[in-house]
Amino acid sequence: MKFQAEIDVMPKKEILDPQGKAVTGSMKNLGLAEIQNVRIGKHISLEIEAETEEVAKAKTEEACKNLLANLIMESYTFKVVPA
Amino acid sequence: MKFQAEIDVMPKKEILDPQGKAVTGSMKNLGLAEIQNVRIGKHISLEIEAETEEVAKAKTEEACKNLLANLIMESYTFKVVPA
Repeated sequence: MKFQAEIDVMPKKEILDPQGKAVTGSMKNLGLAEIQNVRIGKHISLEIEAETEEVAKAKTEEACKNLLANLIMESYTFKVVPA
Repeated sequence: MKFQAEIDVMPKKEILDPQGKAVTGSMKNLGLAEIQNVRIGKHISLEIEAETEEVAKAKTEEACKNLLANLIMESYTFKVVPA
């Protein structure tokens, strides 16, 4: 069975996010001063061939831990749905 | 009122995603050959000060169009919820 995973990898709250800070500053120049506290991370979508949703979730977890996220600086969340 | 927007900016389907292709290849080396078709984009979270959810959504749309996404190569989706 095929599953689709949608993963967000974000810099941890304690970590300075210079890209987000720069974009927050640019919002003001664009006339969007109401926008604050921009943080920028990665969004990853992928397909998994697995027997059950549990297996697909375990595989996604493994991919996040071993490749997609740097757990020292980033945290991840994901959703797995049947494709 | 404060709202929280969660935005995904992804390369369009017709556009080659070399970073995603490279990660798809690495999955095999990690023993995760079940994972295919990896695509990598950006996830952006931000806070908006607005009167209503409609205004917050309009501001988010404006930010996406004018700064966060390159509409030639990327498409975006977002959710706005009260913070």
